[in-house]
Amino acid sequence: MNRFVKCGLAIAVLIAPVVAQADDADVINYRKQIMKTMGEQNAAMQMTLQGKVPADQFVSHVKTLHLAATQALKAFEPEVQGDGMTGSAKPEVWSNKADFAKRMNEQVAKLAALEKAAVEGGVAKAGPMIQTSLDCRSCHENYRVPKK
Amino acid sequence: MNRFVKCGLAIAVLIAPVVAQADDADVINYRKQIMKTMGEQNAAMQMTLQGKVPADQFVSHVKTLHLAATQALKAFEPEVQGDGMTGSAKPEVWSNKADFAKRMNEQVAKLAALEKAAVEGGVAKAGPMIQTSLDCRSCHENYRVPKK
Repeated sequence: MNRFVKCGLAIAVLIAPVVAQADDADVINYRKQIMKTMGEQNAAMQMTLQGKVPADQFVSHVKTLHLAATQALKAFEPEVQGDGMTGSAKPEVWSNKADFAKRMNEQVAKLAALEKAAVEGGVAKAGPMIQTSLDCRSCHENYRVPKK
Repeated sequence: MNRFVKCGLAIAVLIAPVVAQADDADVINYRKQIMKTMGEQNAAMQMTLQGKVPADQFVSHVKTLHLAATQALKAFEPEVQGDGMTGSAKPEVWSNKADFAKRMNEQVAKLAALEKAAVEGGVAKAGPMIQTSLDCRSCHENYRVPKK
């Protein structure tokens, strides 16, 4: 092994933890973008129901929520713990992995059904399903560092 | 006109500006939710391209961006000026209404084409279209109060 290869290896060892750190930050940042999207699209959907903005955007917000929920499912696959900041993932996401995955998959399935109803019959058909379709709190209470 | 009707009218006149104010705040809040979604989903999509997160989420983010762009088109229809805060709509949105509408419609059309390409051929087909499909800056420079 020549001097340059050894040097390269030494540098690689020194850099490795920094790279891993950056990767973890990316994973956490990605999740945050998606969860923020869910919060905003839920708020926007609620505004269409409250008559605050045009009701014709209801279906679009439901579709977006469904897409974002599928993104969230993927975003929480890597076992990278939250950064401990308010609103970030608790360690329980991975220590209770089976329960968390079950809830996330249920959320996707419920939003798929809500989208189907919304496309078929608008608010009249999908409206009564909303409360059970977006049960954010049941997951956030167990798996999210509380918002201050 | 009896006393009670007069009284009711007087109260209505007193309350009206407060209600209008609340409605304007709703319109602005709704827009902000949607524009934030676009920013986040764009960031998330870029992360899939940079290899920071799974590439298989690329199409989902493009679909979400397309939906959010159609929401934005609707959200800017009411002639309610921004609240003057950083990132809010400039008065030019309505004084240059035709140009603004043209750009917003172009954005939706470009994202529709990007989604089509992404669904058909993934990043390989849609990748080269991204830079021209998400020209956020050209609109923001003219129509958004600069971010600090």
